[in-house]
Amino acid sequence: MTPATMKWWGWGAEDVSFSHEGKPELAPFIERVLGLDVRRPGSGAVTFDDLEVPTPELPMGLSADLDAAVGPEQVSTDDRDRVAHGRGKSLTDLIRQRRGDLGRLPDVVVRPGTEDEVAAVLTAALEEDAVLIPFGGGSSISGSLEAEAGEPRPVISMDMVRLNRVLEIDPASQLACVQAGVFGPDLERQLGSQGWTCGHFPDSFTHSTLGGWIATRSSGMQSDRYGDIAEITRGLRVVTPSGVLVVRPVPSTSTGPSVREMVLGSEGRLGVITEATIQVRRVPPERKILGYLFPTWAAGMAVMRDIAASEASPSVTRVSDAPETAFSFAMRDDPNLLDRAKSKGLQAFLRRKGWDLEAMCLSLIGYEGSADHVAGQRKLSQRIVKRHGGLCIGSSPGRLYDQKKFDTPYIRDFLLDRGAPADVSETSAPWSELPTVYDNVMAAGHGAFHRLGVPGYLMCHLSHSYHSGACLYFTFALNPPDERDALEDYGVVKRAIQQAFVDSGATLSHHHAVGTEHAQWLEEDISSPGVAMLRALFDGTDPGANLNPGKIVAADSLAGARERIPGASR
Amino acid sequence: MTPATMKWWGWGAEDVSFSHEGKPELAPFIERVLGLDVRRPGSGAVTFDDLEVPTPELPMGLSADLDAAVGPEQVSTDDRDRVAHGRGKSLTDLIRQRRGDLGRLPDVVVRPGTEDEVAAVLTAALEEDAVLIPFGGGSSISGSLEAEAGEPRPVISMDMVRLNRVLEIDPASQLACVQAGVFGPDLERQLGSQGWTCGHFPDSFTHSTLGGWIATRSSGMQSDRYGDIAEITRGLRVVTPSGVLVVRPVPSTSTGPSVREMVLGSEGRLGVITEATIQVRRVPPERKILGYLFPTWAAGMAVMRDIAASEASPSVTRVSDAPETAFSFAMRDDPNLLDRAKSKGLQAFLRRKGWDLEAMCLSLIGYEGSADHVAGQRKLSQRIVKRHGGLCIGSSPGRLYDQKKFDTPYIRDFLLDRGAPADVSETSAPWSELPTVYDNVMAAGHGAFHRLGVPGYLMCHLSHSYHSGACLYFTFALNPPDERDALEDYGVVKRAIQQAFVDSGATLSHHHAVGTEHAQWLEEDISSPGVAMLRALFDGTDPGANLNPGKIVAADSLAGARERIPGASR
Repeated sequence: MTPATMKWWGWGAEDVSFSHEGKPELAPFIERVLGLDVRRPGSGAVTFDDLEVPTPELPMGLSADLDAAVGPEQVSTDDRDRVAHGRGKSLTDLIRQRRGDLGRLPDVVVRPGTEDEVAAVLTAALEEDAVLIPFGGGSSISGSLEAEAGEPRPVISMDMVRLNRVLEIDPASQLACVQAGVFGPDLERQLGSQGWTCGHFPDSFTHSTLGGWIATRSSGMQSDRYGDIAEITRGLRVVTPSGVLVVRPVPSTSTGPSVREMVLGSEGRLGVITEATIQVRRVPPERKILGYLFPTWAAGMAVMRDIAASEASPSVTRVSDAPETAFSFAMRDDPNLLDRAKSKGLQAFLRRKGWDLEAMCLSLIGYEGSADHVAGQRKLSQRIVKRHGGLCIGSSPGRLYDQKKFDTPYIRDFLLDRGAPADVSETSAPWSELPTVYDNVMAAGHGAFHRLGVPGYLMCHLSHSYHSGACLYFTFALNPPDERDALEDYGVVKRAIQQAFVDSGATLSHHHAVGTEHAQWLEEDISSPGVAMLRALFDGTDPGANLNPGKIVAADSLAGARERIPGASR
Repeated sequence: MTPATMKWWGWGAEDVSFSHEGKPELAPFIERVLGLDVRRPGSGAVTFDDLEVPTPELPMGLSADLDAAVGPEQVSTDDRDRVAHGRGKSLTDLIRQRRGDLGRLPDVVVRPGTEDEVAAVLTAALEEDAVLIPFGGGSSISGSLEAEAGEPRPVISMDMVRLNRVLEIDPASQLACVQAGVFGPDLERQLGSQGWTCGHFPDSFTHSTLGGWIATRSSGMQSDRYGDIAEITRGLRVVTPSGVLVVRPVPSTSTGPSVREMVLGSEGRLGVITEATIQVRRVPPERKILGYLFPTWAAGMAVMRDIAASEASPSVTRVSDAPETAFSFAMRDDPNLLDRAKSKGLQAFLRRKGWDLEAMCLSLIGYEGSADHVAGQRKLSQRIVKRHGGLCIGSSPGRLYDQKKFDTPYIRDFLLDRGAPADVSETSAPWSELPTVYDNVMAAGHGAFHRLGVPGYLMCHLSHSYHSGACLYFTFALNPPDERDALEDYGVVKRAIQQAFVDSGATLSHHHAVGTEHAQWLEEDISSPGVAMLRALFDGTDPGANLNPGKIVAADSLAGARERIPGASR
C-alpha cells in the first residue's frame, strides 16, 4: 500500500468501499436512527479533473537542493501527489476534499530513501526557510498534516514510504529496529516471517506507518497486552535541526525529562522520525476473542474495571454501550453470526432473567498466549463477568470483529456520499469518572443534535483498560437536511463532545493526537503552564518554526502566558 | 522522620549506624577483599561545632517576602538547618561534609505548608532573583540538591516536609492523591491504614519523599510488579513560573509530547511538585520472596531474561553476581539463615553437580497476590529456573533481604569511618547487551583499581526486569592508603564505571537521576540533540535560571549546539 493508490477524497484504497448490501438489517437501522435511506445511490466527490489545483511555488534554490538531497525522481510536484498529501482523513478533511476545497497544498512531495536524505531535506528546508511536514500513511484524523492557511513559505511534504524495512531483530531483547515509514501490514509481514509480532493494530493499521503511530501516540486494539505505541517504542532516531537525535533502546532510564516521551506525540514539530527500536513478541500459539453480553452499560463498565483490578490480564477488553450494541447487531452480514445472541430462545431466556434487551451491551474480551495461559485468563475474567450478571456468547462476535476491524473507517465515506457526516471522538479518564464522562458526553451530543434540530446517533465503547482507568470511544452520525452546511452541523456536535471531555476531567484524546482539530482544548486539558512547556520545547528546538508549524500548540495560543505569576487557586 | 533528625554528615537517622558486630564473617571478608581491618575503631566527621558555617546572605526584601509567604516560624537561617540542606548523600557529598567542606550552603530554609505558600515562595524567588532548590528527604546521590559553587544570588532551600498528607483515595480507580513531601514510611502508613499500598520501595525508602521519587525518576524493589515511579505517577500539580501546572490523572493520553514525563526526572528545574495522583493497589494477601542459586552469572541473567519473555510476572527479580553473592553470605548476622546454602551437605551436593562454588550466584524472586496467583507464578518461574540449572533454597534469603533492605546505605558511613569509599552506579540496557555491559564495567572498575594501585572490590546484581532489558546495579569499594585523597581515588573508579556504561550502549543511570554528578555523560547518552531539547525546555520554562540551575544540563554544556546543521552519520 503506497499513498499513490490512496483515495485523495476518502479513506483507504481506491478499490475498497463500504456497502450496506449483504447486511440486511443495516439500511433499516440507519433509516430508523438517522432518517436516512442509504439504499438511494449516493453522490461522491467532485472528480479530480474538476479540481482547481494551484500551481506549486517552489523557489529554484530549494528545488535544486531537494533534487540534490533525494534525487530528482523522488521530488514530485505532480498535482495528484500534492492533493493526496495536502491533509489527512479527518471528517473535516474529507468534506473539504469532496467539495474541492483543497487548502494550502504542499508545493512539493519528496520521498527520501535514507536517513541522510531526510537530513539533507531538513537542512534545505531550514536554509531556504521552507516548511517541512512529515507524511506517513496520511491517516491522521486530527489535522496534523495540513500546512497553515496562507502559509507564505514553500511547503514540503516528506513522504516516508521508502523507509520501510525491518533492519534487525534482537531475539534475546525482543526488540526490532525498524524504519519509520513502514506500513502496518508490511511491518507485521516482515516480523511475522521470523515468528514475531509488534502487536500494534490501530483501526488505521492498513493505512498508517510506524512513524505516524509514534508521532501521534497511537494505541491499538490489543494494547492491553502489547502496550500503547508509547510503551512499545524504546529507541528512536530523529532528524532534528540540531542533528540526529539518538534515543538508546534501554528499557528504562533516569536521564532527566524523557526525551523519548518528547518525540512521542510530537507530530513532526521536533524533527523527522526515521527509525525506531520497538518491542516485539513471539506470535502467540493461541488467540481467542470471546463475546459476552451484559445486562447494562454500568455492569459492562464495572466488569472492565474489576478485571483491571484483578489478577487477570486479557489482551482485549471492550464493551459497547446499548446504542453501539444495536449498531453491531445491525451490521451483521452473515445472518448466522451472532445467532445465539439474537435467537428467540436466548431472548426469552434473558427476559426471564429480567434483562431489558434494549439496554443489553455486547462485549469482547480477548486472551492470547499458551493454551494454559488462555484458559487461566479466561477463567479469571469469566468469574468477574459472572459476578456482574454477564453471559458468554462464544466466539462468533470475536471472529466478526477480527474480520471487520479495519473496515470501519470506510463507513464514513459511505455515509458522506449520502450527506450524513459521521465521526469519532475518544478520551480517557479514571475508572471512577467514566460513568460521569459518559453521561456528560451523551447529554452534550444529544443536546447538540437537539439544538441543531437534526437526527443524530451517538454510541460508545470502552476499550484499552489500564490500572486506573480506560478509554471511552464515541462514534456519532447526523443527518442534516440538504440545505444545511453539513460541515458546520458536524462541527457543532464534535465540539460539544470534545468540550464535554475536558469539562468532565477527561483528556482531549486518548490516542488520536492534537493536530489542529483538538488544539483548542489543549490548554483546558494540560493547563496553561503545560502549554507553556510545550511551546518552550518547540520554539527552542525549531526557532524558525519550519517543522510542521501550528500543530499541537497554535502560534498565538499563549501570548502573554510568560508574564503570568504563579497562582495556586484550584 | 524529619530532616531535623537526619545526619548532616552521613546517611539517615542520627541514632542508626551499621556495624560488623554480630556478623561474624564480615570483618574477615572485608579484610580479605580490601585489606581493611574494620575491627579497628573508625574516625567520624569533624564535629558540628568545628564547622565554619558561612553567614547567610539574605536580602531584606527577600527575607520579608519569605516571612510573608510561609510565616516567620517556617523561615530558618539556623546553621544546622542550612548545613543539613546543603547537599544530598552522594559519596562525594559525604566525604566533603565529613571534611567540613560545606560547599555553597543555602542562605535560608523554608517549609511551606500549602501549595499557595509554595507559589508565594516561588514568586518571591523570581521577583528577587533568588535560586530555589526543592528539598524532599535529601537522599539524592547524584548531586541534585547543592547550589552551584559561587552562586552569587540568594539560595533558598524549600523543604517539603510539611506537605505530607494522603488527601484522597479513589478505590474504584486505585488512585491516591498525595502531597509530595510525604516520606516513604508515612505514605505507606497512611495508605496501609485503609488497606492500600503504593508498592514503591527504593533503597532510600525511609529517607526519601514522593516528590523526590518523581523528580528523579525513582525505581523500587518491587517495581517489576508496581511499576517505576514514572508509571505509578498519573496526575501532578507543579508550581511553575507560569502558574500551577495541572496534569490530569488520566491513564493514557495523546496531548502531544508528554508534559507528565517532562516533570518526571526534572529535579526542580521546571518547578516544585506539590501533589501527585499515584497508582495504589490493595495490600496483597500473600507475599513471598524465595532464594535461588545459579551455577553461574550467565545462567542467572538468562533466567531473568527468560522470565521476562515468559508468561510469568513475579514481583521481584534479582540475581547477584559471584562477588555480590560472596558479600551477601558474609553479611549473615544469624548463622542459621542461609544455612542450607552454606551447609556442607549442600556444598557437597553442588560440587557433585559440577558447580564451581566460587562462581555460584544468589538470586531472589518474589511473588505476590492471591495464594493461587503466587503458586502459579512460582511454578512458571521455577520451570525456567530449573531449565538453567538453578536451585530453590527457600525463604531464608528473602526474609533476610526484607529485614535488611533499607540498611545498606549505612554501610557507606561505616566504611568511610575507616577511610574506605564505597558507592553504587547503576544502569540499564537491552537483555542482549547486558553480558557485554557487565564485562566492560568489570574491566573498567578493576582497571581503575589497578591503575590506582589500591585494593578494590566490585560487585553487581541484576534487578528491575522489563520486556526488553534490565537494570545492572554495581556496588564498589576501595581502600586507598591514608596518604592518598580518597575522594580523588573514588572519582577515578566512579568515572571509569560510568564511562563504561555509556561506551557500552547502556544509560548513565537507571533510577538515580543526573544531578551534577552524572551530567558529564548526558550528551553521550541522549545525544547532543537530546540535550538541546532539554535545554530548550528548561530555558523556555525558567528563563531566569532561578530553579535549581546547573542540574541535569550544565549551563555551558551546549554552547553553539543550535548552530549545528543536521548530519546523519551513525
